[in-house]
Amino acid sequence: MTKAEPAGREFFTTRTVQQARDGFRPRRRTPVETVPLDRALRRVPAAPVTAPHPLPGFARSTVDGYAVRAADTYGVSEGLPGYLTVTGTVAMGPIAIETATVKPGTAVSMPTGGVLPAGADAVVMIEYTAEAMPGTIEVVRPVAPGEGVVRADEDARAGQQVIPNARALRPQDLAMLAAAGVTSVQVHARPVVTIFSTGDEIVPPETQTLRPGEVRDATAVALAALVADAGGAPVHGGIVPDDPAALEKALREALAASDVIVISAGSSVGARDETATVVARLGPPGIWCHGLAIKPGKPTLLAECSGRPGEPGIPVIGLPGNPRSALVVFRLIGMDLIRLVGGCTAPPPEPSVQATLARDLPSATGRLDVVQVTVNGGAATPVFGPSALLSVLTAADGYIVIPEEATGFDAGTEVDVTLYR
Amino acid sequence: MTKAEPAGREFFTTRTVQQARDGFRPRRRTPVETVPLDRALRRVPAAPVTAPHPLPGFARSTVDGYAVRAADTYGVSEGLPGYLTVTGTVAMGPIAIETATVKPGTAVSMPTGGVLPAGADAVVMIEYTAEAMPGTIEVVRPVAPGEGVVRADEDARAGQQVIPNARALRPQDLAMLAAAGVTSVQVHARPVVTIFSTGDEIVPPETQTLRPGEVRDATAVALAALVADAGGAPVHGGIVPDDPAALEKALREALAASDVIVISAGSSVGARDETATVVARLGPPGIWCHGLAIKPGKPTLLAECSGRPGEPGIPVIGLPGNPRSALVVFRLIGMDLIRLVGGCTAPPPEPSVQATLARDLPSATGRLDVVQVTVNGGAATPVFGPSALLSVLTAADGYIVIPEEATGFDAGTEVDVTLYR
Repeated sequence: MTKAEPAGREFFTTRTVQQARDGFRPRRRTPVETVPLDRALRRVPAAPVTAPHPLPGFARSTVDGYAVRAADTYGVSEGLPGYLTVTGTVAMGPIAIETATVKPGTAVSMPTGGVLPAGADAVVMIEYTAEAMPGTIEVVRPVAPGEGVVRADEDARAGQQVIPNARALRPQDLAMLAAAGVTSVQVHARPVVTIFSTGDEIVPPETQTLRPGEVRDATAVALAALVADAGGAPVHGGIVPDDPAALEKALREALAASDVIVISAGSSVGARDETATVVARLGPPGIWCHGLAIKPGKPTLLAECSGRPGEPGIPVIGLPGNPRSALVVFRLIGMDLIRLVGGCTAPPPEPSVQATLARDLPSATGRLDVVQVTVNGGAATPVFGPSALLSVLTAADGYIVIPEEATGFDAGTEVDVTLYR
Repeated sequence: MTKAEPAGREFFTTRTVQQARDGFRPRRRTPVETVPLDRALRRVPAAPVTAPHPLPGFARSTVDGYAVRAADTYGVSEGLPGYLTVTGTVAMGPIAIETATVKPGTAVSMPTGGVLPAGADAVVMIEYTAEAMPGTIEVVRPVAPGEGVVRADEDARAGQQVIPNARALRPQDLAMLAAAGVTSVQVHARPVVTIFSTGDEIVPPETQTLRPGEVRDATAVALAALVADAGGAPVHGGIVPDDPAALEKALREALAASDVIVISAGSSVGARDETATVVARLGPPGIWCHGLAIKPGKPTLLAECSGRPGEPGIPVIGLPGNPRSALVVFRLIGMDLIRLVGGCTAPPPEPSVQATLARDLPSATGRLDVVQVTVNGGAATPVFGPSALLSVLTAADGYIVIPEEATGFDAGTEVDVTLYR
């Protein structure tokens, strides 16, 4: 049994999640700004960073021991030690290079990390030496040139790329930049993401007593958290009533000040159509898809609206009104879109675990299903419930994805669970 | 061949990483503070949060359709539809309850999310209805009581725990709190973690031109990033010269203002012993272990020093001087320690992937080896190099752990790679 679709809906295209991920690639990128190193974690470099000079910059010992000429140790053994005269000691910190040099038949005492003295080409570990008499050591194991030593340019040559662009900076990347003396980084600005909630039933979370039919805005604060996780700067656009004129006014204002706009667009057909109609007016290019082959989350809208003159359009994501559907779709589609606009095309890895499915999961072919699960002792147990229930999401440890081509998974199937953090 | 250990070193205990993780469990916890919901992401609730009233608080429709008495639909089918008189329409938003009631033989038009009218116990999806004549619908599929409806307390009963303590708040947890009208949360304060770098050779990252022997402080900024990732508030204690009096003074000041202290303690034997001697003086309880059975990272010190009067001691972590060793150890031991002090005993999952080891990896029994790897096309390829090299860490996508009892992994072994993000 069918029912006529409301006028206009049939003109919009339903897409698969993969089509959306591959095909909805807005050109907008945030501008470049400079941040100090101690505020650069997870920021996205706008260009590769190169070493301004060789690193570490001088040959260093990697062990506690004696700097030697390797040739002086050739052939030595426990039974036939070599003997070297100790002519000095290298301390940590800057040294006057001429104070310690290694000539044939001599050695200089070295701490780990110390500057290799002139004339030396290797360091013998202290474990393979002993004091034969005051001022003389015996060496019982030979070293090759370069052994026990880091070369002056072994960490990086001058001009060598040490950090790539388009990937968020990790803790060790900051260490490398500090080692290179790079104390500020050119990064993409955080995308400004304005988040709207629509619906006459939506009231602010602060509302202590609800009238029947009123629902607190649960989605906005969670979307803001996901935006921040994706490197964006969330801005609360507030709650907009189910009134096309009010929505259009709010969106026009936000288009002037945002890099991305996210709307949780109401779950009823009327609310969804109203959002689509308003968004369509704010192109070109306008609506890219209205409807995703995903459960939950089908009534998703992807669009690009006109931004500031001369700039690429502003991506607009219309999400389902159910908080759970909205958060599922935003994880799958929205976060990488925020990253893209923020210059990050190499998203970070997500936590995941393999687990055995505890029961059968049917699914319709041609639709991607996202199923919330708990994980316990290697078993993934689905958490069921209407998509209106937030408790399903808070009870879950993660989710599994049943791809479009599958008709479900049997109990006992090994599944990949993407874990929440 | 052996060499006498410097005096005092043999009194300290070497432990395994597992012993350290299980056994070094300081009692210190940060105090509780209140934060607004939009700043609560990843914060750790000090107590479980309960729902102040039933959620969603009223019975809601989960579909677009018609509210009915389920009994009125029993036995209907495509061939033998039931007929119901439409007596009203529920709009979104608050309603006057008396305006819409469902009596036998009647139905009320409903949007998804709307308030279930009095008298109704189910909602028929619009797809299973059609307008038979103006004001009358035919229903072609029966519904059971509760179908198409979320009960008034289905998301949470009044007083039910909705969010646990001791686990960092995830985006969907914020949604649930907002839905419940909980707009601020009692959380553990972020642990204040003071980070020191020691060594006469260490200079600030700002230093543009290095003299031979000088090394920029690469560790502090990366440790600060890891501390922040673990929910802590990093404080830069600065660079302390290799001088026991200076270190003791710096540590005493930090003990008065920190929850945890981290020292990258110099790589040479002398520097390490000096740190241990000073830390030992700042007990009780003092040093818990000096030396971890891990590579890289053996010269690690774990201690608890006296804090403010009447308060539990302050955990102190002495890390190796090599930035790479320091970061490896801090990931394995330090981050969960910060979380523990900050009240989080359920650490978030880490990204990981299974991969095939591309070459043999020997390892000494009794020691845990951490090997940096790149991951490409399902293969994990070790990145080798002295632990002094930071480029090994920046080149790596993640690391594998060879446990104490193993003597290494053969090429072709399936290994778990913990991925960096």
